[in-house]
This record gives sequence, C-alpha cells and structure tokens, in this order.
Amino acid sequence: MKQAKFPMETAGKVITCRAAIAWTINAPLCIEEVEVDPPKAGEVRIKIISSGICGSDNHILEGKTKTPLPAILGHEGAGVVESIGEGVSSVKPGDKVLTITVPQCRKCDSCLHAKGNCCLKADVIYPVGLMLDGTTRFTCRGMKVHNLFGTSTFTEYTVMHEISVAKIDDAAPLEKVCILACGVPTGYGAAVNTAQVTPGSTCVVFGLGGVGSAVVLGCRAAGAARIIGIDINERKFARAKALGVTDCLNPRNFKKPIQQVVVEMTGVGADFTFEAIGTIETMVAALESCNLSYGVCVIIGVSPTGSQLSVDPMKLVSGRTLKGCLLGEYKTRDHIPLLVEDYMKKKIDVNSLITHSLPFVKINEGFELLRSGQCIRCVLIF
Amino acid sequence: MKQAKFPMETAGKVITCRAAIAWTINAPLCIEEVEVDPPKAGEVRIKIISSGICGSDNHILEGKTKTPLPAILGHEGAGVVESIGEGVSSVKPGDKVLTITVPQCRKCDSCLHAKGNCCLKADVIYPVGLMLDGTTRFTCRGMKVHNLFGTSTFTEYTVMHEISVAKIDDAAPLEKVCILACGVPTGYGAAVNTAQVTPGSTCVVFGLGGVGSAVVLGCRAAGAARIIGIDINERKFARAKALGVTDCLNPRNFKKPIQQVVVEMTGVGADFTFEAIGTIETMVAALESCNLSYGVCVIIGVSPTGSQLSVDPMKLVSGRTLKGCLLGEYKTRDHIPLLVEDYMKKKIDVNSLITHSLPFVKINEGFELLRSGQCIRCVLIF
Ligand SMILES: NC(=O)c1ccc[n+]([C@@H]2O[C@H](COP(=O)([O-])OP(=O)(O)OC[C@H]3O[C@@H](n4cnc5c(N)ncnc54)[C@H](O)[C@@H]3O)[C@@H](O)[C@H]2O)c1
Ligand SMILES: NC(=O)c1ccc[n+]([C@@H]2O[C@H](COP(=O)([O-])OP(=O)(O)OC[C@H]3O[C@@H](n4cnc5c(N)ncnc54)[C@H](O)[C@@H]3O)[C@@H](O)[C@H]2O)c1
Ligand SMILES: [Zn+2]
Ligand SMILES: [Zn+2]
Ligand SMILES: [Zn+2]
Ligand SMILES: [Zn+2]
Repeated sequence: MKQAKFPMETAGKVITCRAAIAWTINAPLCIEEVEVDPPKAGEVRIKIISSGICGSDNHILEGKTKTPLPAILGHEGAGVVESIGEGVSSVKPGDKVLTITVPQCRKCDSCLHAKGNCCLKADVIYPVGLMLDGTTRFTCRGMKVHNLFGTSTFTEYTVMHEISVAKIDDAAPLEKVCILACGVPTGYGAAVNTAQVTPGSTCVVFGLGGVGSAVVLGCRAAGAARIIGIDINERKFARAKALGVTDCLNPRNFKKPIQQVVVEMTGVGADFTFEAIGTIETMVAALESCNLSYGVCVIIGVSPTGSQLSVDPMKLVSGRTLKGCLLGEYKTRDHIPLLVEDYMKKKIDVNSLITHSLPFVKINEGFELLRSGQCIRCVLIF
Repeated sequence: MKQAKFPMETAGKVITCRAAIAWTINAPLCIEEVEVDPPKAGEVRIKIISSGICGSDNHILEGKTKTPLPAILGHEGAGVVESIGEGVSSVKPGDKVLTITVPQCRKCDSCLHAKGNCCLKADVIYPVGLMLDGTTRFTCRGMKVHNLFGTSTFTEYTVMHEISVAKIDDAAPLEKVCILACGVPTGYGAAVNTAQVTPGSTCVVFGLGGVGSAVVLGCRAAGAARIIGIDINERKFARAKALGVTDCLNPRNFKKPIQQVVVEMTGVGADFTFEAIGTIETMVAALESCNLSYGVCVIIGVSPTGSQLSVDPMKLVSGRTLKGCLLGEYKTRDHIPLLVEDYMKKKIDVNSLITHSLPFVKINEGFELLRSGQCIRCVLIF
C-alpha cells in the first residue's frame, strides 16, 4: 500500500489506499487496495482516523437490509479533511470532521423546516450507494465500488458531499468521537428530541447495543426514574446497569410476551419505549409496552428491507404515539458538533460505550464482537 | 308506550319507554318497548332529548366493528338527568348533560396523567357492552340488551356511569349540542390537541363526514393555510368548502394512489394528515400523504375489528409521527362542557355540521342519510 502524504501532495490526485470491501453478503470483508478519486465540486476527501461499527453496517452484511454491493461500508467515522472540491467552504484541509449519514444541505424542505432532519439529499432510507451525480469515487481491481449512505468509512480515505461532513472541535480525540457520528446522537436524540422523555418517567429500551446504550444515556439525562433494558444477550446487562438501566429483562426467560411482562411490571405500561434492534417483533413489543393512552414508542431500529410492521390501529386510537427518527432528529451539521463539545465537557459519557478498539485491518474481528454481543461499540483505528 | 313523567315520579322505578334495538347486524333497527332499570350507585338515568348518528354506530350495524348484540346503539346524545344513583354528586335531576363514550373517572392512571384521556373505565376500544358491574340496565321482551360504550342513546331513557356524563350549560340547546358529545370534539381535538396543527400549515383530511368536518373546523381554527379534503362522495365537497377546505379530491378520479396525488400537489407531502373514515387503505394513504421528515398523521377512524395496519417502518424512521386519538384527546368531563360554551359563544360552528334532523322513530332513515352521504350529521329528536 502506498501511504498518501497528508495534506497537500495528494490533493487533486487519485489516492491509492486500503479499504474493506463488502463484495457480497454473508462473507468477511476483504481488505483491498482501492483508488479513491479526488473530490468533485461540493465534495470533501477525508482521511479516516477511526470508525465505529454500527448495527446498520452489520444488517447489510447479514443481508437484512439491502444496499448495492460491492461497497465500502462504514458510516460512523471521524477523520481529517485531506482535500476539498470546488466551492466547498464549510471545511478545509486539516479540519477534524465526523462523517454523517444524514446530510444537512440547509436548502431542502426538510432542512428548512424547524422539525425536519431527513435532508432530501440523504441516501439512507432506500440507499442507492452513489454520490448525488450517480457515480462513485471508489475503484477496486478495476471495478466501481459503491459507497454507503454517502459516507463509507471502512477505508483509509473516503469522499463525501460537504453537506454530510460535520466540522468538529480541533481538540476532539478522533479515536473516540467517531461514535458521535451515528450511534450516540441516534440513541441520545431519540430520547431527548424525539420522545422528549420527561423527568420521573418510566422508559423501556429494547436492545442494549451501541444505540440502545445511548438511548439509556439520553433517558437518564432527561431525568427518567426507571429505565427498563431488554436484550436477549445477558452479557449486556452489567454495562447497561452501569449506564443507568434500573431493570434488565431477557425475553427468553419469560413464557409470556415481553410486552406483557413490561405492562405487568409497570402496572400501566411505560411512558416511553424505544426499539433499538431492528426486528418487526421487537417493534410490536415496544409499541405494546407503552401506555395505551399517553405512551410514546420510538422506532430507531432499521428493519429488514421490505418488512412491514402490522399494528391493530385501535392500539393507536386509544392515544399512543408511534414515531421514528433518523440520527436522533438532530440537524446534523448544526448539532452534532455541539454534542462533541458536550462530550468534551464530560456531559455525555461516550467513553463507556467504547468497549473495544481494534486496528482497522482486524475489522472482521470487530464485526464478530458486535454479533456475539461482546462489545457495546468496537472502534476501528486506522 | 307509557310516557314516563319527569322527573320525580319515575325515580327508583323501572321506566318503560321506546328504544331502537339492534338485534343483529345488516338489518334495520327495531323501535321496541324496553324496560330501563333505575340507576345503581354511581349511575345516572338520563332522558335523551337528541342524539346524533355517528360513523361508529354505523360500523357496528354494518358488521365492521364488533360489539355484543342485541344492543341499544347511539352514543352522541344530549339529555336531561331523570334520576341519580347513590353517591352521585356531579349531576342532579334536571341537569342538562352530554353522554360521553370516554369517561373521566379522575382516579385512574390515564385520568391522572396530564396527557391521558383513555380512562381505564372506558368500554370503547374492545367493547363488552355492559356496565362496570358486568350487567345491563336494559330489558326488551324479557331479554337483556347490551349497551354501547356505556352510553346507549337510541332510547328515550338510558343509564350511564356518572363518570361518563358531562354536565353542560343550562342554556345549551339540546337539539344541537348532542354532536358535541362525540363527532365535534373528536375531530376538532384531533386537530388542535393531537396534531397540534400549526399556523400556515398544510393539512389533509381523509373523510368529510361528521368527524372529518370537525377536523376541518379545528384545522381552520389553528390557522392552517391549506386544507385538502378527500372523499369518495363528491356530495360532501360543497359543504366541506364552506367549512374551510381549500381543495377537494375524489380518489376515484385518479389513476395513481391518492397519497401520490397529495405529495405531488404539495411538493413535499402535508404537515398534518387525518384519517376520519376507518379503513386500513385510507390509513396507509394518510400516513404516506404526510411529509416523510416532519409529517404527523392522526388516525381517528375506527378500523374493522381484527384488521391490521401494515407500514414499512422506514416510513416512520425518516421522521414521521403516527398517532391516534379518542374523542380528540379531551379530558371529557372537564373539557367538553367548555366546548359547549365555545359553541354558545359562536366560536365553533356546530350548526353547519347538522344538516338533517329527524324524529327518533325515523332512525333508520337517519342511517340511510349517513350511508348515502346525504348528511354530514343527522340528529334524532326525541
Ligand atoms: N434510526 C437511525 O438513525 C439509526 C442509526 C443507527 C442505527 N440504527 C439501527 O439501530 C439498531 C441498533 O443498532 P446498534 O448499533 O445498537 O446494534 P447492536 O448490534 O449494537 O445492538 C443490537 C442489540 O439488540 C439485541 N437484540 C437482537 N435481537 C434481539 C431481540 N430479538 N430481542 C432483544 N434484543 C435483541 C442484541 O443482543 C444487541 O445487544 C439497528 O437496527 C441499526 O440499524 C438506526
Ligand atoms: N377516535 C374516535 O374517538 C372516534 C370518534 C367518533 C368516530 N370515529 C370514527 O371516525 C370515522 C368517521 O366517522 P364519521 O361519523 O365522520 O362517519 P361518516 O360516515 O359521517 O364519514 C365518513 C366519510 O368517509 C367517506 N369515505 C368512506 N370511504 C372512503 C374512502 N375509501 N375514501 C375516501 N372517503 C371515504 C364517506 O363518504 C364519508 O363522507 C369512523 O370510522 C368512526 O368510527 C372515531
Ligand atoms: Zn449507524
Ligand atoms: Zn437538506
Ligand atoms: Zn362517535
Ligand atoms: Zn379514568
């Protein structure tokens, strides 16, 4: 592998570097040499310093959610701007940045709306794996390789649209803050922005992985009195309790549906429930676990492509609210840098969520840690 | 028929009077002589003066939603208290009242919660058709007859729990305000309480019947800039426009799904959509008609028993909110009397929704007016 020199010499040139290619589902990623084109107008080339492995990456590799392959996956990245394309003004070479799946173009209807964060330039709901001009900046063995969500962080260098790049504090520790690119804001914001958890309330978090753990942090910050954590992997329970979960439940230990257990435990169902797993079954359980009259259920998990959530509408008519959110409903470029500051002021305990760090080349081990549930977040270091 | 003398002579005695009995679905109601027991402790016997015919009554007669039969249907009633059972303190004989399907017991978890209105004493979501003690106050031809939602207003006298009886202003015109017992608060509250329609917003109302028309009033009161009304019965359009609908659409006039038409008309989908029909198909259309990022869809319609609403959860994850509501999320006994006052101060145009009045005995004609879509609300006068 040729080591690209940072920053100026490589500008305007193709960079050859290492990337983990997902050639196909249900197979290990392959570390390959790739060519990364220079950024076009409005684009930014970034040297990736660290990347978390998110449940969404794993869904794709396991074939649950579809995105065109071959691709360079990864979206929870932190890095340094290597070069910028024409017209880019919000970042410059050398800036520390996070790679965000949901752009903030500041021009589209969603961006201009006070409550919208699903920028119409996003490639995240039904992804096509290409830049907005319909092409890709990655080539491997002469083949064009797709990107993921306009991010692609399992590579030493990536190219992104400026609108998806969040400039962060120069002092931010890049080997940690990568998880502020996705998992942390996703979970934390689901609690504080989407659900608007109230002090003294009872919350239930389905899934105690990286995202669910960040939900727990958000619920705690919002003053929840009781936080029930649900996971089939009991390995997660000790760490979850350390983060603030008051009761841990493994659905497999009960004969009755877990929603019934929650309703019985709470007497009336929870105020707020969160689905941070991505199965239809747990979405139904989350909805039915919240109070029939004033309960709010937030769907965060990404369900298998084409799957449908079936609900008896009367479960809503009684008063429930069912909502979903992307990246915790943050206006990404505006707000994620502020979360980084909060982290640096020790207001958000990001470090506890990073249980493992591995060199980038051990990425397949990282995925194993996620699948076996040994990690909360495993961060790859480049 | 013996004419019961009001108020005192009948107190404590069984009243024999006329009621419309639903013996079976898909058949006309039968006007029969019934015996109405005196109210037990906590109960109130009411002389019904008027009753609207609501879509929910019709769903039952058409077999779409299930409630035990034989029953006395009707729930949108206005009347005068004839007598009260032991311990009743909030109303006394002679008081003008509305009959409300959703009680406000002021003691249960929902009633005590700031945002809850689905009182746990309600018999409205999966109705059993009996008083809370498991019995009924109606007998016809020696047979016990179920009530509906704890109300039953298609009868000259009914017995209800005190907690479902809203005392209203002595000066309220009883032949009009009955529709403030259900249709008006249901629709109006869906807009102002549940959706919290914002000034300048775009709203879509599916179904321009009694409830949908009240949604229109609520959207207008909240300052919506554009109100798109959708109905398959174009007879509804002129009245809807008079109420404030800016654009009327008949889905049958389009080859493409109506949600696609709405998204194209608005460019981005609506801010707020309301389903006031009660079919799964229109619920899906309402959800998909609202903006993917910040849209709010409110389900008001009562869907066929056992039916399931299927949604791709990604349509929520992008940011949509799907919620339902009962009776416009009002704390019924507290707030519905205030709506009556608003009506009397001409702040809510209830009169425009009452397009027909018929004597009680013509109830089957009233249902025909509803089914054929000739009326918005037809009120029966006793
Ligand atoms: N909406 C968004 O913006 C957004 C952003 C990031 C991730 N996500 C989604 O959030 C979900 C969680 O992501 P993550 O990174 O935390 O993944 P993760 O793998 O770290 O965590 C998932 C957790 O769910 C548990 N689990 C799996 N099946 C379960 C079941 N049937 N019952 C109970 N627990 C079960 C696992 O043991 C694990 O602890 C994924 O679906 C991911 O795609 C959504
Ligand atoms: N959630 C609650 O608290 C509550 C209270 C009252 C009524 N409801 C429900 O609200 C719904 C409406 O009640 P209503 O009294 O206004 O009934 P309604 O019969 O007066 O109105 C229904 C309207 O929908 C139209 N319609 C029927 N099928 C349609 C279709 N496929 N596409 C478009 N329009 C269609 C009809 O032409 C009619 O104008 C019913 O389902 C009723 O059960 C709910
Ligand atoms: Zn992610
Ligand atoms: Zn945008
Ligand atoms: Zn009704
Ligand atoms: Zn109550």
